[in-house]
Amino acid sequence: VKASDLGEFALIERLAGTLGGSQDREVVVGIGDDAAVYHVGTEYIIATTDTLVEGVHFLPDTDAHALGWKAMAVNLSDIAAMGGWPAFALVTLALPGEVDVAAIEVLYEGIRDMATVAATPVIGGDTVRAGELSVTVTVIGQAVQDKGQPLLLRRDAAKPGDAIAVTGTLGESAAGLRQLRDGVTESLFIDRHLRPQPRLAEAALAVSAGIRCGIDVSDGLLADVGHICERSGVGAGIKAEVVPMSAPLRRAYGDALHLACTGGEDYELVLVGPRKKLEAIKDEAQLTIIGEIVDHRDPRPRLLAADGRVINFEKRGWDAFKS
Amino acid sequence: VKASDLGEFALIERLAGTLGGSQDREVVVGIGDDAAVYHVGTEYIIATTDTLVEGVHFLPDTDAHALGWKAMAVNLSDIAAMGGWPAFALVTLALPGEVDVAAIEVLYEGIRDMATVAATPVIGGDTVRAGELSVTVTVIGQAVQDKGQPLLLRRDAAKPGDAIAVTGTLGESAAGLRQLRDGVTESLFIDRHLRPQPRLAEAALAVSAGIRCGIDVSDGLLADVGHICERSGVGAGIKAEVVPMSAPLRRAYGDALHLACTGGEDYELVLVGPRKKLEAIKDEAQLTIIGEIVDHRDPRPRLLAADGRVINFEKRGWDAFKS
Repeated sequence: VKASDLGEFALIERLAGTLGGSQDREVVVGIGDDAAVYHVGTEYIIATTDTLVEGVHFLPDTDAHALGWKAMAVNLSDIAAMGGWPAFALVTLALPGEVDVAAIEVLYEGIRDMATVAATPVIGGDTVRAGELSVTVTVIGQAVQDKGQPLLLRRDAAKPGDAIAVTGTLGESAAGLRQLRDGVTESLFIDRHLRPQPRLAEAALAVSAGIRCGIDVSDGLLADVGHICERSGVGAGIKAEVVPMSAPLRRAYGDALHLACTGGEDYELVLVGPRKKLEAIKDEAQLTIIGEIVDHRDPRPRLLAADGRVINFEKRGWDAFKS
Repeated sequence: VKASDLGEFALIERLAGTLGGSQDREVVVGIGDDAAVYHVGTEYIIATTDTLVEGVHFLPDTDAHALGWKAMAVNLSDIAAMGGWPAFALVTLALPGEVDVAAIEVLYEGIRDMATVAATPVIGGDTVRAGELSVTVTVIGQAVQDKGQPLLLRRDAAKPGDAIAVTGTLGESAAGLRQLRDGVTESLFIDRHLRPQPRLAEAALAVSAGIRCGIDVSDGLLADVGHICERSGVGAGIKAEVVPMSAPLRRAYGDALHLACTGGEDYELVLVGPRKKLEAIKDEAQLTIIGEIVDHRDPRPRLLAADGRVINFEKRGWDAFKS
């Protein structure tokens, strides 16, 4: 079987099976969430890593500063999606020998600028020769504790009756990617696509408000809520008319809802928990309550129109191997 | 300037400069040692990452199990080289869509088998599509503490008068690589090359014996002792006649000393400190005392023949970009 026949999620599942599921009692969260959590001494350490490959995750002529920024931001977003705070980062650069060092320095400036915003120093990594450019960022963070227990935003903690909320607005990143592909070089949407803002402060608010379930929007709203449903053994209903979209997005795109629900790479947070707890931090965390967790086993969230009909989009997310 | 013109070490230095050297007070060891160390809450977290790229770090027909083993082992060796214990690992696999999943599963079995020996569960990572196969392992570990301070094996802690010791024997890994290139498929040397054994127990012995300076032998003995000299601002003399080599290596290769001093990828530990402290753990840690730190500023270690003459080898180590 080829990797491309299997697809990204099936491949990860199969490889995780090969690793054999650890019996280690210090593993708090293993493979299958936004980041892993491990009990080290008296701390709960959160760890995540993401690789961006030229031609797969970014276009070859992508602005180097933006690429660095994004490589760091997506990892910080994974730490936020666990409810943690970042501590430090490692950066691995794989590059062909003929790459211009000046461009790589600009890429590192992007990494540094995002890292500085999040007070997360880059303290190590690796530099290797390779046939194609790729950048791998690893961020190590720390969970907030209460009485020796870590307070986390897990994917597997959704319960029927919980409300579903999302920070900020959705769809602009996907619109930005569409503009880049159409040859546009600068716009608000492109900036959203290239320079995502990890929702670390919002995650901290959610955790201290008692929220225990969440994910960041990387694959697309429906796909990511679907990941929560799958891991929690529940279903979800999302009201289309309240999915948060900016006025410029609505004005510019007739299919804004499609972009907002399936586009992905928004790096907003989906938070799931008791409605009252979400409402308590609604303003401060810029939350919109968009739906509810329901007691059925179909992990595909139902996107509901105002009249109660189910809206179906063909594409629900993005698969690195099948696309 | 192209990356290949600059060379690996100069490139890393320049990129580290771009990151700007953090003012973060929790950074204990930053870029430039075997692994980074960061103070998280009440723990000192050690982090290291290494990437192996097909065609650069391993031959395309390398045994997949051995490749997985080695990718994990070299990172565990970096944790040992800081004097720490591993806690958990992340694994990132970059692979072309047409790669056979069965081969990747064997690679993961190799990762798992080495990880199991070191009681280091793989609890996360990333899987990405790429033009060429590469595997990136990140290991997160923990430093032993004494009165709230971390006990580490640093590169910058060598002092004139310190003795230099090394664990085990050297040169067999380089001999194994030579055999692989000559078409040999199985031998003791090849096994040393493909399945290094990280010296975690020896590192722990050294730290509790009061040793505070060390490095693992990856670039080659002279190059790695040179890294210690450079970072510590000292020189070193190494006695050629006591460099530890196995009897089979001496028998098989007329240039065994060259292999032992410059071959690299031995993943033994160089330990530097007071002679008495090293002698106290000599037997248990299989140490050979091979030389002494001296008070001069030439960071290139002098390899001394029995008659006191300096032995010069042209090649001192390995550069990923220049080679």
